[in-house]
Amino acid sequence: MGKNLVQKIFAEHLVEGEMIAGKEVAIRIDQTLTQDATGTMAYLQFEAMGIPRVKTELSVSYVDHNTLQSGFENADDHRFLQTVAAKHGIYFSRPGNGICHQVHLERFAKPGKTLLGSDSHTPTAGGMGAVAIGAGGLDVAVAMGGGAFYTTMPKVVGVELQGELRPWVSAKDIILEVLRRMSVKGGVGKVIEYCGEGVKSLTVPERATITNMGAELGATTSIFPSDELTRAYLKAQGREQDWIPLTADADAEYDEYIIINLSELEPLVARPHSPDNVVSVRKLGPVPVQQVAIGSCTNSSFSDLMIVAKMLKGKTVHPNVSLVIAPGSKQVYTMIAQNGALADLIAAGARILESACGPCIGMGQSPASAANSVRTFNRNFEGRSGTKDAKIYLTSPEVAAATALTGVLTDPRDLNIEYQKIALPEQFLINDNMIIPPAEDSAEVEVVRGPNIKPLPVNEVLQNEINAGVLLKVGDNITTDHIMPAGAKILPLRSNIPAMSEYVYAAIDETFPRRAKEAGKGIIVGGVNYGQGSSREHAALAPMYLGIKAVIAKSFARIHRQNLVNFGILPLAFVNEADYDGIDQGDELIIEKLPEQLDAVEIMVKNLTKDVEFKTIHGLSERQKEIIKAGGLLNYTKN
Amino acid sequence: MGKNLVQKIFAEHLVEGEMIAGKEVAIRIDQTLTQDATGTMAYLQFEAMGIPRVKTELSVSYVDHNTLQSGFENADDHRFLQTVAAKHGIYFSRPGNGICHQVHLERFAKPGKTLLGSDSHTPTAGGMGAVAIGAGGLDVAVAMGGGAFYTTMPKVVGVELQGELRPWVSAKDIILEVLRRMSVKGGVGKVIEYCGEGVKSLTVPERATITNMGAELGATTSIFPSDELTRAYLKAQGREQDWIPLTADADAEYDEYIIINLSELEPLVARPHSPDNVVSVRKLGPVPVQQVAIGSCTNSSFSDLMIVAKMLKGKTVHPNVSLVIAPGSKQVYTMIAQNGALADLIAAGARILESACGPCIGMGQSPASAANSVRTFNRNFEGRSGTKDAKIYLTSPEVAAATALTGVLTDPRDLNIEYQKIALPEQFLINDNMIIPPAEDSAEVEVVRGPNIKPLPVNEVLQNEINAGVLLKVGDNITTDHIMPAGAKILPLRSNIPAMSEYVYAAIDETFPRRAKEAGKGIIVGGVNYGQGSSREHAALAPMYLGIKAVIAKSFARIHRQNLVNFGILPLAFVNEADYDGIDQGDELIIEKLPEQLDAVEIMVKNLTKDVEFKTIHGLSERQKEIIKAGGLLNYTKN
Repeated sequence: MGKNLVQKIFAEHLVEGEMIAGKEVAIRIDQTLTQDATGTMAYLQFEAMGIPRVKTELSVSYVDHNTLQSGFENADDHRFLQTVAAKHGIYFSRPGNGICHQVHLERFAKPGKTLLGSDSHTPTAGGMGAVAIGAGGLDVAVAMGGGAFYTTMPKVVGVELQGELRPWVSAKDIILEVLRRMSVKGGVGKVIEYCGEGVKSLTVPERATITNMGAELGATTSIFPSDELTRAYLKAQGREQDWIPLTADADAEYDEYIIINLSELEPLVARPHSPDNVVSVRKLGPVPVQQVAIGSCTNSSFSDLMIVAKMLKGKTVHPNVSLVIAPGSKQVYTMIAQNGALADLIAAGARILESACGPCIGMGQSPASAANSVRTFNRNFEGRSGTKDAKIYLTSPEVAAATALTGVLTDPRDLNIEYQKIALPEQFLINDNMIIPPAEDSAEVEVVRGPNIKPLPVNEVLQNEINAGVLLKVGDNITTDHIMPAGAKILPLRSNIPAMSEYVYAAIDETFPRRAKEAGKGIIVGGVNYGQGSSREHAALAPMYLGIKAVIAKSFARIHRQNLVNFGILPLAFVNEADYDGIDQGDELIIEKLPEQLDAVEIMVKNLTKDVEFKTIHGLSERQKEIIKAGGLLNYTKN
Repeated sequence: MGKNLVQKIFAEHLVEGEMIAGKEVAIRIDQTLTQDATGTMAYLQFEAMGIPRVKTELSVSYVDHNTLQSGFENADDHRFLQTVAAKHGIYFSRPGNGICHQVHLERFAKPGKTLLGSDSHTPTAGGMGAVAIGAGGLDVAVAMGGGAFYTTMPKVVGVELQGELRPWVSAKDIILEVLRRMSVKGGVGKVIEYCGEGVKSLTVPERATITNMGAELGATTSIFPSDELTRAYLKAQGREQDWIPLTADADAEYDEYIIINLSELEPLVARPHSPDNVVSVRKLGPVPVQQVAIGSCTNSSFSDLMIVAKMLKGKTVHPNVSLVIAPGSKQVYTMIAQNGALADLIAAGARILESACGPCIGMGQSPASAANSVRTFNRNFEGRSGTKDAKIYLTSPEVAAATALTGVLTDPRDLNIEYQKIALPEQFLINDNMIIPPAEDSAEVEVVRGPNIKPLPVNEVLQNEINAGVLLKVGDNITTDHIMPAGAKILPLRSNIPAMSEYVYAAIDETFPRRAKEAGKGIIVGGVNYGQGSSREHAALAPMYLGIKAVIAKSFARIHRQNLVNFGILPLAFVNEADYDGIDQGDELIIEKLPEQLDAVEIMVKNLTKDVEFKTIHGLSERQKEIIKAGGLLNYTKN
């Protein structure tokens, strides 16, 4: 029986377990990446493990989230990250060098390798034929220390691409179509593997747009084969030696199979407030738009910005639209500065932002009150833009540029502009002067810690029972943005859990942190797909710090569930979803005989207030049970 | 007797009063400018006056302060400013179009004209031969309505420039030398008028650097003659028709006279925490530097950035230095993008910021804790960078670029780089597509107000006595940054006085706003040069909102004193400075028979706690007395 791509790479890296979908496996990690907002914690955790130098083939620390520096905290974090990287054998990508996923694709990602990153959009490198998985910082710290990565062996969904994209339809529309069909929870427990003739018409950056936003499916990762186009990209990056051919066997089997005919696609848009709320731009019609934002790890490649520049050249953005553009990397930025495209963008009235995540994580450029903002980004969750009542529409760069010119949501085919396909450059500009290699002699490096970098809080071992009130009951599809908001005011606190914990669930219930601290312990009840969104372990770490002992939900997003386990918070799923309706906020729950109950499949929870019992499933692997018992992965690793 | 330049332009615009230094005069205002942080208030005030369209020759509303948009407030303000400008006959320079002073110099400033701007660096246009004065927003609103500008007729200081600058010495070093000689209070009540042969070697942007930072002398304004170089600049801006020749008469007289030999100057630096704390770079030696910031209304011209680009081309910024660069205008930005200089800057590792004030007003790029930051800006007040314990050094772009390369404060003459003087371009790139002209039909424009734009607080008429406690006693050289901090967290509140007032004196005494509210009224006691720094009327308006009735100080900075009057707060100067020492915070003071006492020169203040009396001088003109009696300029204008 033929193997698919995922099976091949997993088999090559298997350390423990059987490759049966749904079973826990452990794989060896070749590369890691972190970004600054998750990285400070990850390196504090790595330091706590007491290992002098990373044991991976390559580990890179990027700075792309906190670059506004509205206070001393960001610059202090950068200095900590730079020095801790130098000391422990990690490459450091300086602020301004670009978004981690774009830079990693350009300079480091390799076909056939495994990459673990403390950012949910790590699957971007799947566009290169790598198995690239997002995880919490602690998992990444363990991987840097040479530990395997434990995950559920995913199902593999084959997505066969047929035909070719028509003019003005782009890679973004492919992933929007996948989201339309599969929904934001359709990828949970799965890897999306692209195949078919249509793959051959997509460059590596286009493939990376698709694998990047596979994160919004809830998928473990997404992956493309490594073929001649992969080789051409690596050659243009001066890295042809990193190329290996890698495809699924002709008779490969998939757990699910989807066919998408590229030639039938048209420009699509994800409406507020979910990335799967997808419809065609023409069908949605001319929604008035006050802001257009182009960039992010999804759509900020050289080709993305070149087509925008060609569309805007000699024109002027609509007077009611603020157009902001953030190039994805210093490589992209320098190239468009050299070839005149950047001058065209500036002349047209674009506001150019530093090469970083920027408005995609609510780090500046919040829209006006109740404004509509068209963005080439990957998420349009309510409030993520920094403006509570703004509405975010996700589109391709082509649709975004067309909209910037007209002031209303616009299908670029409806403008009288000649389409020019942007070819992959034969040679990218290579200048790694903003990537600092680690020090040869660690002893010479002093790690610099600013006053905002606080010691890591550590959980206690699991007690015999959890007897606590339901401090909060929330609905379906709660995102990590709900649990632990990002944005310009809160992100700078990422290395300071006591300060950060004051904002847990701030948008849903401002009283939550206070009530949690008063109670000293608590339980959260959630709906379906609890914890979707980013990989931020702060969404587990800060609630842990506030005393949260368990989350009981209808279902969990993969990374967040693992983060709960990693910090010793028990994740329990209702056996009968109807039991969710029987619980009210404020109810007192008790989970007894805890270490023993973990050995059973089901765990009984008593609602003391309602005097009822209900069943939950923990679904923990043997290793995860041990982690929970130890009070988290750091305790477990130390033991 | 010959006339100097100031006398000529004042005479041409005199509406009221005698041109005798120290006497109040009123002059006609030809042009006004506002920036967004002071502009929202100015336009609320203009609206309150009920005048349909501005009566100036030209009024421009710029957006350059609040462009980070870390929340809905900034974008809401931009939309308000754009619509209110369209309605009332005002040109609107969109966010991203550049810093008000740089853009105004390029596109609007004219020799011989008067310009009133609600920004303390408005004197930048003095480099063009205009009388350009910074004032509070309310003064600007009155000028937009056709009212004259009342000010004390200044003394005129002639500064004769001899010789020529040597390589690597720049216009910034000239103004630093003037600051070294005259100090931050040496310009109070004066205009600095440049003359002499040395003027002929300085381009208009170089002159503008000098007049810009004349604000730090406390001067009313600074001015250069309009000569053939002015004509060349205007021609290169496509505005030769705006040129008139304008120089002082050969036998002009000056109240003071200073000679500076340019050929003796060397690269200078203003050390923390005052712009007049000036020493030569070589003398100060190789201070380690963690950040270099290039830009601001002082040093962000085409020539400034070109010389930096030439110095950095093919090199890499020092690994310990974060180099940030903000071009001064879209014109500058587009030109360096077109000619490849921007690509050189990015390639060298510079982080390019939007064309705006940015870090100069603490709006992002705060340095790390206790870091040294070398900046081409105009102010290095403690805490203004957003990092309380950072130390700011002010230098020329040449010194800044040299420092970025070495990581220590560096005289560029000590690097092995060939000096290339940057010539003024024969033709600047002209593209005003980000400047929106006012609507022809005001009735068609609806002014859009976001929820953060609150109604203007208005003071009550002067009572018979002020009987209040000393809520705060402060020392010398208190800046408007102390009184009403700016920075990323507070600036977005500029159109919301109730919210903003929570931060009055935050860095000096966090309890001040609470205590003021509890007391319901209060008096502030200050030292020498009280209220130096920016033109922000919020430093008067917010204290007024908190109930401050009077400020008693040893002396006042000009703009702030007028702002106090404009909002009905009585500014009193100690007759005997020693009386300052006899007052303690918490003392209860009483100023009796108030309307009558204003008619005398001196006002008696009784300290009820200490049971002593002391004399103060109000120094108010007849008009200012009427304004104080009415409870502020808005009430006075309405009456």
